[in-house]
Amino acid sequence: MSGTRSAVDLERCTQLLGHGPVTLITSAHAGRRNVMAAAWAMPLDFVPPKLIVIIDARTFTRTLVDASGEFGVQVPTRALAAQTLAAGSVCGAADDKFERLGIETFAAQRISAPMVAGCAAWLECRVIPDASARLDIVLGEVVAAYADADIYSDNRWHFGADPLARTIHYVAGGQFFATGEDFSLPTTR
Amino acid sequence: MSGTRSAVDLERCTQLLGHGPVTLITSAHAGRRNVMAAAWAMPLDFVPPKLIVIIDARTFTRTLVDASGEFGVQVPTRALAAQTLAAGSVCGAADDKFERLGIETFAAQRISAPMVAGCAAWLECRVIPDASARLDIVLGEVVAAYADADIYSDNRWHFGADPLARTIHYVAGGQFFATGEDFSLPTTR
Repeated sequence: MSGTRSAVDLERCTQLLGHGPVTLITSAHAGRRNVMAAAWAMPLDFVPPKLIVIIDARTFTRTLVDASGEFGVQVPTRALAAQTLAAGSVCGAADDKFERLGIETFAAQRISAPMVAGCAAWLECRVIPDASARLDIVLGEVVAAYADADIYSDNRWHFGADPLARTIHYVAGGQFFATGEDFSLPTTR
Repeated sequence: MSGTRSAVDLERCTQLLGHGPVTLITSAHAGRRNVMAAAWAMPLDFVPPKLIVIIDARTFTRTLVDASGEFGVQVPTRALAAQTLAAGSVCGAADDKFERLGIETFAAQRISAPMVAGCAAWLECRVIPDASARLDIVLGEVVAAYADADIYSDNRWHFGADPLARTIHYVAGGQFFATGEDFSLPTTR
């Protein structure tokens, strides 16, 4: 992990979520901000890049996302697993969850929500208004994307020997899987 | 992998997709059937269990799903990676993709679509009619679910030493990741 954030082509950026990693969703509005974990986030389309994230309508995050029309999506590595689990377990309405959990942020490029430092990848999104809101579905169009240059380049993940510098997948009850062995198959038809 | 399909509680079944594995979608209508790969599939709700899968409106699978109102979701292991990639690369409108790719099936419990043998888990779904169809979003309510008893029990994955008996995650261009090392964190708040 270099900590260097390198831009990812928008038309390839939803691929950052294609392998199904757990995500952190950031949001902000009117002086308040929040972060939550969302395992239920995935690509919806390539161009323009769209994604879906399920955010319970009763959450503080949803209040901020609905009010601001924006949200940040980040792909944490195992190094942030404890904060990810905590972010998915506590409500941020009463205090600032970033401070409470020791989560560092940086300013986004195109949205008002803060972005979580030290992740593997980041996607800044604007909400696409949709009637599906009743099902907790939030549709977002990606307006900026970038990834850690050490582990994502040329539109591919390149995980190395550091077990903490891998994306993670959530099951339940505190159980995760790290992203495992990569393998490639010929794509000839 | 035992090949034994044991029932999974419906109220916990969407967890089978929670770690973001690639899926196979099966469908059938009026004497035709098809199978496609879908990396863009995830849970939507626990009770009643609902999931989302993105199926391009121009696909043969979508024709069959829309006509029948049902589809099968299966979680393949690495042993089926080649068929999964092929199922996502070729169209099934011209001939029977199961025969062409050598994919074995068995009869579903509650839907008319065939189910793919040898997978890690299976979810039988009925389509939930929704206005989001224009965005290629298909909503499904799970009506039956089961998993390979050797690798999923007590609502948890238990992958063993066999590298082929792990679920897989798709990136692009034939690149996959196997589901990797599991780790657990305390869930105390």
